[in-house]
Amino acid sequence: MSENKVDYSLYLVTDRGLLGERDLVDSIELAIQGGVTLVQLREKSVSTLKFLQLAIRVKEITSRFHIPLIINDRLDIALAVDADGLHVGQDDLPMLKARELFPNKLIGVSASTLAEALLAQEQGADYLGVGAVFSTATKTDATKVSLDQLELIKKSVTIPVVAIGGINSTNLQQVMATGIDGVSVVSAILAQENILKAAKQLQELIKEEF
Amino acid sequence: MSENKVDYSLYLVTDRGLLGERDLVDSIELAIQGGVTLVQLREKSVSTLKFLQLAIRVKEITSRFHIPLIINDRLDIALAVDADGLHVGQDDLPMLKARELFPNKLIGVSASTLAEALLAQEQGADYLGVGAVFSTATKTDATKVSLDQLELIKKSVTIPVVAIGGINSTNLQQVMATGIDGVSVVSAILAQENILKAAKQLQELIKEEF
Repeated sequence: MSENKVDYSLYLVTDRGLLGERDLVDSIELAIQGGVTLVQLREKSVSTLKFLQLAIRVKEITSRFHIPLIINDRLDIALAVDADGLHVGQDDLPMLKARELFPNKLIGVSASTLAEALLAQEQGADYLGVGAVFSTATKTDATKVSLDQLELIKKSVTIPVVAIGGINSTNLQQVMATGIDGVSVVSAILAQENILKAAKQLQELIKEEF
Repeated sequence: MSENKVDYSLYLVTDRGLLGERDLVDSIELAIQGGVTLVQLREKSVSTLKFLQLAIRVKEITSRFHIPLIINDRLDIALAVDADGLHVGQDDLPMLKARELFPNKLIGVSASTLAEALLAQEQGADYLGVGAVFSTATKTDATKVSLDQLELIKKSVTIPVVAIGGINSTNLQQVMATGIDGVSVVSAILAQENILKAAKQLQELIKEEF
């Protein structure tokens, strides 16, 4: 998959904790029907087997809708399900190692500074996840990135930039106005009662901006 | 590395929680000097980057002493450091998937029943870790395996069997008497004040049995 063909506009990052009794795979399907263009499966406290089983189920959905599936952090899971990509944070596998072990796949890197963004690009990242642009309850340890810093990063790199952190329908347009390629959301879709509708509303706002 | 050349007699599984202020890599070096023949690096609550950094340091030691390094659970780490093997539990990557992604390497499987042992062998495991033979504080969720069951498993498979779970210098010989190929220890080495001496004493007891 070439990164040029990837639509980063509405990038869903999963968090099962937000779903209550709702099933993750069903929720992802609704989000895709609503307009999500990319799915990142993120699991932090499950066994490897459980993560793998979830990833297999999610891949069935993303494949059916021709949406790329990115695995957060865990290259073993990404390899085991032949995911479309891997997303690494600054405490995960280093970019160069990820590329070596997962060639010809999308590799995204989390960056919260210009230096991290430039290094990731230099090391061959396919895209950057930059944030947190707003406070977020789903990742309380995230470093804050202002919209000015986000704009500076976007202007300083040639690879796609996706903003993350507390983005929702009320602040989405000011984030998009920085010129970035997409927004990454968690709660703004998964914590909503009507997931399909929430995704649809966000995608409509994005289309207005582009 | 062919499994026929592996000496499973004194198999160290790491647990940094037992070391207090002592350095893991230094402790492993002492354990190897004392007679440990195989090292499994097991980390359950660190970032991927930290696990990788530890694994790189441990591999320098194990390589220098020509001791195989096995990574617990995490194929991504095993691949990233080109470890000699991977050990998977029943909640980890399935054996067949592990073999597919990590060919020509040692793959060990934890088994606590004869059925699990036979399945792992059938699926191509290089060795089995069977336990817990005694109660253990380092893995409180472990299923109990009696010495009779251990002996039955050893007699029913052709691949090497290593016993694990609460094994120490006082019960080692009754475990070895079941005919197994080695013992896997954690506390009996890493929780001891003199790691080198503890490993040496265990290796001497093992040699008496063989």
